[in-house]
Amino acid sequence: MSADIAIAGLGMTEVGKVFGPTAPQFAAQAVRRAVADAGLILPDVDGLLVSAGATRDVTIGLAKDLGLKDLQLLAQVTAFGSTAGALVQYAAMAIRAGMAETVVCVHADAPLRDGTSAGASYGARRDLGATGYRTAVAAAGMTGANQMYAMAARRHMLTFGTTSEQFGAVAVAERAWASRSPLAQLRDPITIEDHQRSRWIAEPFHLFDCCLVSNGGVAVVVTSAARARDLARPPVYVLGWAQGHPGVQLERGSQFGLVSAASLSGPAAMKMAGITTNDVDVCELYDCYTYTVLITLEDYGFCAKGEGGEFVASGVLGPGGALPTNTGGGQLSGYYLWGATPLSEGVIQTRGDGGDRQVDRHDVVLVSGNGGILDYHSTLVLGTNPG
Amino acid sequence: MSADIAIAGLGMTEVGKVFGPTAPQFAAQAVRRAVADAGLILPDVDGLLVSAGATRDVTIGLAKDLGLKDLQLLAQVTAFGSTAGALVQYAAMAIRAGMAETVVCVHADAPLRDGTSAGASYGARRDLGATGYRTAVAAAGMTGANQMYAMAARRHMLTFGTTSEQFGAVAVAERAWASRSPLAQLRDPITIEDHQRSRWIAEPFHLFDCCLVSNGGVAVVVTSAARARDLARPPVYVLGWAQGHPGVQLERGSQFGLVSAASLSGPAAMKMAGITTNDVDVCELYDCYTYTVLITLEDYGFCAKGEGGEFVASGVLGPGGALPTNTGGGQLSGYYLWGATPLSEGVIQTRGDGGDRQVDRHDVVLVSGNGGILDYHSTLVLGTNPG
Repeated sequence: MSADIAIAGLGMTEVGKVFGPTAPQFAAQAVRRAVADAGLILPDVDGLLVSAGATRDVTIGLAKDLGLKDLQLLAQVTAFGSTAGALVQYAAMAIRAGMAETVVCVHADAPLRDGTSAGASYGARRDLGATGYRTAVAAAGMTGANQMYAMAARRHMLTFGTTSEQFGAVAVAERAWASRSPLAQLRDPITIEDHQRSRWIAEPFHLFDCCLVSNGGVAVVVTSAARARDLARPPVYVLGWAQGHPGVQLERGSQFGLVSAASLSGPAAMKMAGITTNDVDVCELYDCYTYTVLITLEDYGFCAKGEGGEFVASGVLGPGGALPTNTGGGQLSGYYLWGATPLSEGVIQTRGDGGDRQVDRHDVVLVSGNGGILDYHSTLVLGTNPG
Repeated sequence: MSADIAIAGLGMTEVGKVFGPTAPQFAAQAVRRAVADAGLILPDVDGLLVSAGATRDVTIGLAKDLGLKDLQLLAQVTAFGSTAGALVQYAAMAIRAGMAETVVCVHADAPLRDGTSAGASYGARRDLGATGYRTAVAAAGMTGANQMYAMAARRHMLTFGTTSEQFGAVAVAERAWASRSPLAQLRDPITIEDHQRSRWIAEPFHLFDCCLVSNGGVAVVVTSAARARDLARPPVYVLGWAQGHPGVQLERGSQFGLVSAASLSGPAAMKMAGITTNDVDVCELYDCYTYTVLITLEDYGFCAKGEGGEFVASGVLGPGGALPTNTGGGQLSGYYLWGATPLSEGVIQTRGDGGDRQVDRHDVVLVSGNGGILDYHSTLVLGTNPG
């Protein structure tokens, strides 16, 4: 089946330690740039989907500030780290249903103030303490994402023999990519030794296992594939998509830390696209932690369950590797804008716009979004050909 | 074209001055009841869409508390008063795309504490003061929805000669319906004189022009029409839908107060359903204020622009009238759960479950959702026949 939906525009603000603009201002700038990139003008936009990070409650305000009129689709959505992918999916379905023709999806955040983090929007979990289980978790010091993911990673280490050095291989590979990207916040190459020497955040996570905090905004223009072919840039076809939200069994059950929600959304999205992992040229994976990359690769089927450590340490992820992954440095070394990080780099690579970091073969690009504590997951399959 | 989507289940908690449960607890109860109403069990649910009112950030928590597993669609969405309709639309498109088969949409709120309102979730606008225009508005005392809508209503009165007594006719008609509904918070019949004597809230709005504040939750189960026919209750077919978000021109432009976003979403939804206003048997309209009902009826085309006052005063809306509207007492006399109020009563009437308030002809039921200050709008066309 030929893809009927495409990403026709990408807009990015300056990202990283960029001070001054509020999240809504970053969002507005990203929307303007995405629309211009597509060769469109703002009055062409008839749908706006806003990721509810720090930009909460600004939906109609954003539309008005941009002078958007008579929108036929407008909402703020959150599924945490899976939101960016989910917005593209929502836009695709609305276009298919005839609700709208040109939908802009935007994520922006501005947690950094004058160089000091005021805390990312997705910081401490507000619902901790809601139940007996969570009260106990909070009382044990597990008050944020770092500690929760650390426990998940530790479980993977204990069960499969995964090592901190293997996690480090992810960080090293991503930094190697980042060193080639003008968009990346951290561009100095690192070694496994650097990773091992970086300070503890929450054992087994060193500093270099954890994502950055960034200000900025990213927007994409989604439209029909037919229309995208008449616009300014080569269409990035949306070949397949899915979500997976496993619920209680992965958090409290025997699989905690061993399997992620990628095991649900990955195979479903690849099935929709009519591909297998063998067809994937590039991966852009949500990497709030090095561990997340490793387990996503396992759950997507790039290696057997439990063999993710060996897989990432084999050198496949970095420049020159067989499975180029997080080619902009990801959230670890590039910039952290939730699911908009892998989405933006996915569009760049599919288009062949990656400059010094461009991957030679980029016909099929997988983009993942992961949120909560392995609770939310979205997958997009992007491609240069409609299939 | 035959409808491919239906609402198969409705779940409502006790609504009104119901103290004790939190919004997430109301939400969970509503979901359980909706699923049971459809003749399904919780493991059948593979999608959950949560209206982001007071229930913010509980999406995965709600899923886990209910024991939902392996969801293929999960998000929290806000488009303010248009959200409930928008969720049903989102669910419909996801089912059509094969993302999920059984999607529950839920809204819950619990602003009332021990009989005293702690403020509805949608209270003072948080984005006031964001721009010069809004700073001026806030400085003039326009800090909440009451004052903003009052100004819109006043404009309608000044331009078209609409009177307070005509607004009162909406309140009287809805109370007459409420007197027949066991779900309604206010059931004592009122007269135009009672309306006129009720205290000022924000001129020209008397108390009886303004919606209630309520605790409670409402959920609906959306599935394919084919599947709904095999379930426990008669399918409520989703025949058409649309959204309309006019943006800057209606707020700041010459049309402020004279035309609402219903003028965008209503015609589009009726076109999708292949109907005209002549085919509509029942209206369930978002009635945060009496004025909203009047202008929605104009913008949907039930009367000419500017003639809404005469139309509603002619007695068409109440029991025995030609256009039964807000048959559960609406948000003015029934209960206020954002767009879940008109949605819930729309499902009840389409099914013929209205008891003493059931309308005889109920083949086609219009449901509206209105949010912001006439900024957000959604319309659903529900029906007993797939068409």
